[in-house]
Amino acid sequence: MFYYAIDLLGTLAFTISGVLAAMDKKLDPFGIFIIGFVTALGGGTIRDLLLGVTPVTWLINPTYMYVIIATVILAVIFRNQLKYFRTSLFLFDTIGIGLYTVVGLEKGVAAGLHPIMCIALGTVSACFGGVLRDILCNEIPVIFRKKEIYATACVAGGVSYFFMKLFPIRNDIVFAVPIVVVIAIRLIAVKYKLSLPSVYRRTER
Amino acid sequence: MFYYAIDLLGTLAFTISGVLAAMDKKLDPFGIFIIGFVTALGGGTIRDLLLGVTPVTWLINPTYMYVIIATVILAVIFRNQLKYFRTSLFLFDTIGIGLYTVVGLEKGVAAGLHPIMCIALGTVSACFGGVLRDILCNEIPVIFRKKEIYATACVAGGVSYFFMKLFPIRNDIVFAVPIVVVIAIRLIAVKYKLSLPSVYRRTER
Amino acid sequence: MFYYAIDLLGTLAFTISGVLAAMDKKLDPFGIFIIGFVTALGGGTIRDLLLGVTPVTWLINPTYMYVIIATVILAVIFRNQLKYFRTSLFLFDTIGIGLYTVVGLEKGVAAGLHPIMCIALGTVSACFGGVLRDILCNEIPVIFRKKEIYATACVAGGVSYFFMKLFPIRNDIVFAVPIVVVIAIRLIAVKYKLSLPSVYRRTER
Repeated sequence: MFYYAIDLLGTLAFTISGVLAAMDKKLDPFGIFIIGFVTALGGGTIRDLLLGVTPVTWLINPTYMYVIIATVILAVIFRNQLKYFRTSLFLFDTIGIGLYTVVGLEKGVAAGLHPIMCIALGTVSACFGGVLRDILCNEIPVIFRKKEIYATACVAGGVSYFFMKLFPIRNDIVFAVPIVVVIAIRLIAVKYKLSLPSVYRRTER
Repeated sequence: MFYYAIDLLGTLAFTISGVLAAMDKKLDPFGIFIIGFVTALGGGTIRDLLLGVTPVTWLINPTYMYVIIATVILAVIFRNQLKYFRTSLFLFDTIGIGLYTVVGLEKGVAAGLHPIMCIALGTVSACFGGVLRDILCNEIPVIFRKKEIYATACVAGGVSYFFMKLFPIRNDIVFAVPIVVVIAIRLIAVKYKLSLPSVYRRTER
Repeated sequence: MFYYAIDLLGTLAFTISGVLAAMDKKLDPFGIFIIGFVTALGGGTIRDLLLGVTPVTWLINPTYMYVIIATVILAVIFRNQLKYFRTSLFLFDTIGIGLYTVVGLEKGVAAGLHPIMCIALGTVSACFGGVLRDILCNEIPVIFRKKEIYATACVAGGVSYFFMKLFPIRNDIVFAVPIVVVIAIRLIAVKYKLSLPSVYRRTER
C-alpha cells in the first residue's frame, strides 16, 4: 500500500517531467499527453518487454492511465505554478527512481536472472522513460549527456540490494534499503554538484 | 475478405506516406523500403508487442511484406505521378486508420483488457507507425505537433465502439460503425480545418 | 565454440562502433556505455522481441555484458590507438554481420516462418543495432542514407541460405556459406566502392 502510493507519486513526477519537455517543444495536446505517458511508463514497459511479461503492466492496471491523464491536465493548466513545486517534484522523481529501480531488480530476481542483469533491468525501469521522452522530443537523451549521477545511483542501489542478499536480512529491509541508497546518492550528488568524471581531455571538448 | 482488402489498401497508403517522407530526406533505397515498412506495420507491431502476441502479425502473414515491396517500388518509380492520387491516398489512409483502430480495439477486448486500454491499443495501432516513421527520419512526430484531429478521431471511434457494446447490437455493426466514425471525424476535421485547441497563450508561442 | 568466438568478436566490433559514435557526440560515460551496448545487442534484441523469445538472449547469458563492459572501458582508454586497428575492426564488424545474419535466419526457421521473414529477421539482427545507435545519437540511421552495400549483403546471404536448402547439403555448410557470402559481398563492395543505385535524378539531389 505504502509502496503503491510511492509508485503513483513517482508516476506523477515523471509525467510532469514529460509534460514540461513537451511544452518546451510547443507540442499539441496529444503530443503532451503521449510524452507524459511515455516518460512515466516507458522504462517499465521496456523492462516488461525484455522479460516477456505481457500484456505489459499498465495495460492490466488502468490506475496508471488515470493518474497520468489527471496529471497531464493539471500540469498544463497550472504550468506557471509548477515552478513553486520544483523541490517537491524533484523529491517525487528521486523517490520514484529509487522505487522503480527496486521493482525492476525484483522482477529480474523473480525471473531467475543473474544479479548483473537484475541491476540492468532496475536501471532500465528507472531511467528509460526519460530516454524515450528525449527521443520523441528529438534530443539526445539527457542522461547520456549531462554527467549527472542518475543512472549511477540506480546501479549503486542495485549493488546494495545484492550485497544485503548475502546476509540473512528480512525481505522488507532488503527491499527498502536500496531505495534509500538511490535517493541518498541522488540527493548528495545534486547538493554537492557531484558528477561522473569526463572521459574527454580539455583539448577534445 | 472485405476488411482484408481495406487492410491492404491501408497498408498501401501508409507505405506511400513512409516512402514520401524517406525521399524527402533523400534516403537510399534500403532506407526508403524500411521507412515504408515501419510506417505501414509499426503501429500494429507495437500493439502486438505490448499484448505479447508473438511472433508479431506480419512475421506470420507474408502478404503484408509483398504489398509493401510492390508499393515501395511503384511509389519510387511513379513518384512524380503520386500527386495526382493525393485524394485517393488521403482516403486510403483515413480508411486505414479507421480499420486499424478497430482491429486494435478488438485485440484488446480479446485479451480481456479494460475499455480505456483497448482504446489506447486501437490508437497506437493506427497512429504509431507514423510516429516511428518520424523518429527514423529524425523529426518530432508530426501527430504530436500539428494539432491535427488524427489520434483524436481514433479515440472517438473507440468510445463509439464501447458505447454500442452497452446495447444488444450485432457484432458486425459494432465493428463497422467505429470505422465510419473515425473516417467521418477525420474527413470533417480536414474539410473544415478543425484542430485541437492550443494550450499555449499567444505570448508563449 | 568457433561460432561463439566469432559472436564475441562481432560484439566487440559493434560495441566499439557505438563507443566511437557516442564519443563523437561528447556523451558522458553512462551514455557511451549504453550506446555501445545497444549497438552490439540492439539488433538481436529486436529480433527476439518480434519472435517472442523472452527473456531476450542477453538477459540469460551475462557473457555479452562482460565483453561489452570490458570493451567500452578499453575503447575509451585507448581511443587514440583505435585508428591503428581500423582494418581489424572493419573485419570483425563484417564477420559479425555475417554471423548475426545467419543466427537470425535460423531463429526464424526454428519458429517455422516463411523464408522471406527469416531473411528479414537475419537482416534486422545484423543491422538494427546500428539503427538504434544512430537514433540514440539523434541522427538519421547511416544505413538508410549512405547507399552502402550493408543490409543488401545480409539479404544476399539470406537468399544463398535458402537456395542451398533446396539441395541435400550438410547443415554446417548451409550455416557457413551465407556467412562467407555476406562477408565477400561486403568486402568486394568496399574494395570496389560499389553502392546501391540512387533513386534520385541529378536535379532532385
